[in-house]
Amino acid sequence: MINNTFTRNSRHKSPHRRSHIPLVIKKPHDIIPPLGDSIRIIPLGGVEEIGRNMTVIEFGEDIIVCDAGIKFTDDETPGIDYILPNTKYLEERKDKIRALVITHGHLDHIGAIPYLIDRLGNPPIYTREFGALMIQKRQVEFPHLAPLNIKIVDANDKSIPLSPNLKVRFFGLTHSIPESTGIIIETPYGDIVNTGDVRVENENGVPVEKEFEQYKIFKDRNVLLFTMDSTGIEKPGFSPSEASILKNIDSIVASSPGRIILATFSSQIERIIEFINTARRYGRQVLIEGRSMKANVDIIKHLNLVDTSIVIPIEDITKYPPNKIMIIATGAQGEEFAALARISNKTHKYVRLDRSDTIVLSSSVIPGNDRAVDKLKDNLYRSDAKIITYLDSNVHTSGHGKRDELKWLHQQIPYKYFMPVHGNHFRLKMHAELAAELGCPRENIIVPDNGSIIEIQDKGAKIVKLLEKAPSEDMVVEGLSIGDLSEVVIRDRKMLAADGIFVIIVLVDMRTGRLKKSPDIIARGFVYLRESQELLSEARGIIRHSIERTTVGMNPINFDYAKSAVTEDVSRFLFQRTAKKPTVIPVILGV
Amino acid sequence: MINNTFTRNSRHKSPHRRSHIPLVIKKPHDIIPPLGDSIRIIPLGGVEEIGRNMTVIEFGEDIIVCDAGIKFTDDETPGIDYILPNTKYLEERKDKIRALVITHGHLDHIGAIPYLIDRLGNPPIYTREFGALMIQKRQVEFPHLAPLNIKIVDANDKSIPLSPNLKVRFFGLTHSIPESTGIIIETPYGDIVNTGDVRVENENGVPVEKEFEQYKIFKDRNVLLFTMDSTGIEKPGFSPSEASILKNIDSIVASSPGRIILATFSSQIERIIEFINTARRYGRQVLIEGRSMKANVDIIKHLNLVDTSIVIPIEDITKYPPNKIMIIATGAQGEEFAALARISNKTHKYVRLDRSDTIVLSSSVIPGNDRAVDKLKDNLYRSDAKIITYLDSNVHTSGHGKRDELKWLHQQIPYKYFMPVHGNHFRLKMHAELAAELGCPRENIIVPDNGSIIEIQDKGAKIVKLLEKAPSEDMVVEGLSIGDLSEVVIRDRKMLAADGIFVIIVLVDMRTGRLKKSPDIIARGFVYLRESQELLSEARGIIRHSIERTTVGMNPINFDYAKSAVTEDVSRFLFQRTAKKPTVIPVILGV
Repeated sequence: MINNTFTRNSRHKSPHRRSHIPLVIKKPHDIIPPLGDSIRIIPLGGVEEIGRNMTVIEFGEDIIVCDAGIKFTDDETPGIDYILPNTKYLEERKDKIRALVITHGHLDHIGAIPYLIDRLGNPPIYTREFGALMIQKRQVEFPHLAPLNIKIVDANDKSIPLSPNLKVRFFGLTHSIPESTGIIIETPYGDIVNTGDVRVENENGVPVEKEFEQYKIFKDRNVLLFTMDSTGIEKPGFSPSEASILKNIDSIVASSPGRIILATFSSQIERIIEFINTARRYGRQVLIEGRSMKANVDIIKHLNLVDTSIVIPIEDITKYPPNKIMIIATGAQGEEFAALARISNKTHKYVRLDRSDTIVLSSSVIPGNDRAVDKLKDNLYRSDAKIITYLDSNVHTSGHGKRDELKWLHQQIPYKYFMPVHGNHFRLKMHAELAAELGCPRENIIVPDNGSIIEIQDKGAKIVKLLEKAPSEDMVVEGLSIGDLSEVVIRDRKMLAADGIFVIIVLVDMRTGRLKKSPDIIARGFVYLRESQELLSEARGIIRHSIERTTVGMNPINFDYAKSAVTEDVSRFLFQRTAKKPTVIPVILGV
Repeated sequence: MINNTFTRNSRHKSPHRRSHIPLVIKKPHDIIPPLGDSIRIIPLGGVEEIGRNMTVIEFGEDIIVCDAGIKFTDDETPGIDYILPNTKYLEERKDKIRALVITHGHLDHIGAIPYLIDRLGNPPIYTREFGALMIQKRQVEFPHLAPLNIKIVDANDKSIPLSPNLKVRFFGLTHSIPESTGIIIETPYGDIVNTGDVRVENENGVPVEKEFEQYKIFKDRNVLLFTMDSTGIEKPGFSPSEASILKNIDSIVASSPGRIILATFSSQIERIIEFINTARRYGRQVLIEGRSMKANVDIIKHLNLVDTSIVIPIEDITKYPPNKIMIIATGAQGEEFAALARISNKTHKYVRLDRSDTIVLSSSVIPGNDRAVDKLKDNLYRSDAKIITYLDSNVHTSGHGKRDELKWLHQQIPYKYFMPVHGNHFRLKMHAELAAELGCPRENIIVPDNGSIIEIQDKGAKIVKLLEKAPSEDMVVEGLSIGDLSEVVIRDRKMLAADGIFVIIVLVDMRTGRLKKSPDIIARGFVYLRESQELLSEARGIIRHSIERTTVGMNPINFDYAKSAVTEDVSRFLFQRTAKKPTVIPVILGV
């Protein structure tokens, strides 16, 4: 007889494991009341975090979805690729979805399209041309999906009717990628305005004329609800202007004696365009390094946003003197295999740094990347090249407005209700406080969570947050699967990462209850086994003793009991000897 | 017959594993040339990182070791508790060690004492009284160790002879913990000066009188080598003064309508003392929350550094009105179980936040802690309490001087040679550049790595960095063990964290080569097994097929071959189906 109950369904059979792994209890969905004649607004992502932006606007028989972004993961969710907004609410109302409307082409606004568009019933996607190209570029990596139904729109164009009651209109604004827009959803009771990501170009804190132009359409509009990016709320003042950054980069390029390497986010497309213009001014050829940077420059080229005739392939780098070269590269965040990392650690095929090189890290450090960036800088400083970062010099500004920029935007758009979005809870609260300071009555301000159901009721007369919530548990992409985040698997991974695993395999003679041979042990991530032979040998003794104490003379043998006992004995022994708590798993086979 | 070669020493037997896990090749130690009449300086830690500071000074028959710190770990080394300086060089020269001298009582300067003092032959430890108490407090957690031989010294005292040729002298300077000192090692050829961690108290960029006082001893000294903290070099200008921070906190306390909660590092002892003084000024009782905070306040009390009679136990919080309460707490870095976290997530036994509370996060965010701090702030903002951080208001300044403070220090201490320490490589390089700008000849500046052997030769006439290095591989504390960092174990842990483990157990009939039963599978951290029964069932089929294809009719059965084949087949199958690469481990038992 062979006992295999443990290994088939072990997690829920072992009393030992159950003792320290609480069950994941899923709450039944609250029963969401019917819509009635309210306008419903549901942020499905992006309001308890930065990333995975998606907001639902529902009225009558129609739903418009705004943006479909991903969030990147961190060490809280090892092994997970991306986190998606939870779309269960939409899946249950798929037939009502008239459109997915896109503010701009960054991944936290478009990255979830390949994973979710099917679940939304493949609605048409309304976007400006640049966003469309970014979406298409990403879609190429998912060849099995049906073609997207993309409808390219202009900003400041006429409104586009999406249903008898809802129209959408796009308006241009400033961010860090071409054709960034805000969105106006026109309802019978007034406009719902979503800025998407936004900053305000300014000269020493005074917005430039173009900014006033962009918002003058709001002079005559009836804005019922205003929702706005809160990413930069924590930082006081205005950001340095992009123009001042570019001027500064220009003078760095002008005075660089050799090659200049400009590293930035590949998503900073407007800046990349200006880098190429700067190269032209100084007679430098441009080399583009990094896969995402190349892809985005292809889009720039396709749209003819800049003359790219001076862009040459990296193989041609030797054909020009160093002072005629500009390299635009990815990797300023210390990404391990990016172009700049390879340049810094001397594994790049064509570039070795020397004293005449100048490297500009034209980006800030994204929280969480500090150590990677320090490592990058360490490697760069091993060379004699000149390194310039945003700490020393004005070489980066954020695409997200700081507090005074947000304040100015509030003043351009007269509105009745305000809902801060795009940011952690504390950022939304700070943004709500700003709106209150600017005169918005507190009862007109709503701070949502993911899945909060906000209703504008009584033809616009009041705004409420329902007690019920739309499903909002994390949905995740892991390898090929899209689904709920399994807390159990994540907890196992964290335990494995900290203490490793210790698997015990024993063959028990069913007649005598004795071990047929010395136990086998498989350990990974626990201790270095080669140097722990004594520990293993002692462990084998304990295993044999623990099991035979239970099984010898027992008839029939209770395997579950034996497993529970040996797990406990071995765990205690390993902890006493090492102060580590590996996941101990016994396999007892009867022969 | 039972085959167990795999499980005993599996890592180095499986061709599959070897193909993607490179061997760790240990370099033989370089042969270090004899000392001769040079003065040797070897930073064993703290110069390719921030943390684990330790520097060796060797001359003739004597060695003095300066500081013995730990470094905290990050996600690059899961499961590791601390990283220590590598002391092999010292262990081989234990008899020469005359003293361990301590600059101040922070863990990155004293934390390694319990782990290393034995390896250094238990030399006497020279420290100021505050440092001694911090050392003793930590030592209590290691009751099995021999008592330390601590010698308490004063700053600005006479020199202490440690050997015929070497004397040591301590001088007071400003950091963020009481009795911080710099150290002068007097050699026959001149002084070796190490500042330890240092800042410069100033008023709007003008050092205060006390600072000039502290360094006036250097007017008449012959400083051969100057080594100095580089932590803050990247940041331009002067830091805000501690006095301005305290003034600001004072006015926050003055205007707070209810309880005030001040959260800071427990290591910010001078600030904690002033918080208590502030409470007294406003008639508030003080509650100390957090284990390390309490321990440090006990030391403050023991030394009578402040009148602690207003410090009351937390149970007494209800005896006073809210506006008579000040809570000083740990947890401003978002530490998961710290007092502030418990207050923020409503699990604290005595404190629930309300609108009248004011919380001050009197600390900056340490790189790597950003997400934890965001989470803390999210929870705090769920309450209606008022939150003040260093971004809004001047409530924190660093204990490490910024660039202009370092510059001013260079100007106070005339020296011949300069070696920047305490910081990543890029910080040392920036600090070296500063010294060069200030007039130090470049050939007189040495930028070391961990283990670099610096020699001042020819009675002080020149300084060189030898080609040979002292052993400098990471030493780590993990549970109860202290030893080399096992790259293999760490790599396994990272793989386990990302993709989990998939163990296959099969019983093969030795006569027929057929499986005796359906294979057992143990997976952890891979996919959620309950929802993957189909995948498991297919995997069982593949395992059976793969093994029997090899073993049926084979005599004797080649277990290694079968294992290698099944590992490959199963890995390929799992990757195709999930795009995940779990660590696949086969166990084949013949019966």
